Amino acid sequence: MMVSSGNLIAIGSDHAGFNLKEAIADYLEKKGYEVKDCGTFDTASVDYPDFVPCVVKVVKEGGRGVLICGTGIGMSISANRYRGVRAARCLDVFSCEMARKHNDANILVLGGRLMGEELAFRVLDVFLNTEFEGGRHKRRLDKIDELGSGF
Amino acid sequence: MMVSSGNLIAIGSDHAGFNLKEAIADYLEKKGYEVKDCGTFDTASVDYPDFVPCVVKVVKEGGRGVLICGTGIGMSISANRYRGVRAARCLDVFSCEMARKHNDANILVLGGRLMGEELAFRVLDVFLNTEFEGGRHKRRLDKIDELGSGF
Repeated sequence: MMVSSGNLIAIGSDHAGFNLKEAIADYLEKKGYEVKDCGTFDTASVDYPDFVPCVVKVVKEGGRGVLICGTGIGMSISANRYRGVRAARCLDVFSCEMARKHNDANILVLGGRLMGEELAFRVLDVFLNTEFEGGRHKRRLDKIDELGSGF
Repeated sequence: MMVSSGNLIAIGSDHAGFNLKEAIADYLEKKGYEVKDCGTFDTASVDYPDFVPCVVKVVKEGGRGVLICGTGIGMSISANRYRGVRAARCLDVFSCEMARKHNDANILVLGGRLMGEELAFRVLDVFLNTEFEGGRHKRRLDKIDELGSGF
């Protein structure tokens, strides 16, 4: 079967997000998504920014991403450094719904030390299945990359 | 009295964050902080990225910032585009504690449509009064700006 990039989900975490990343990889594969695992690959202490470029590369090519650290805050800061990336840290379903409808989020950021697997799966479902509303929200997204550079 | 930049807090919001921004400005002034209000100045519909550069400028000069939109997600994406900015969207006290201790967050991002004033004040108190732990966390912050550029 041909796999379009829209079916590809890159996942990355640090040690604090490793267990949730593994659970999410299984969940996504069972749902028929193609998963690219960007690491980390065990629970040894690592630096969260190291796992961001691999996920960003997939997003820049049209896929989507999931990043996980302890709270999600470090991953959110790191990922949003990249032009064209819209990483949304969502610990609840409503935030994730808005992150898709209004912000066209292309990376979902989760907190491995803050969320149980079942909640993470519900948030992930919303991330994968909610459409961007466009319109005035698109104008605002364009401004993010116009304004956010070089100072 | 001499005011050091550490006492200066820049605040900015879109229309959805306007009411909470006004409440936070009052709260900060009563506590003796110097507040720079970067707008918006009423509830007319505006684009959240337009209010970010003014807050970022203060942060780059050693102050701190607070940004507010409906969910905080748009502001978080926008602000983290800037090198040296570490904007943390915190809807709860624990996330904010970690955002300071581990991520040395210099901008607190709040969701005007998600949080009541009293909760926002508690989170803000944690943001203002929690020290960064440094150490291995400093190495990770350095990597954010080393890795997050140009692709």
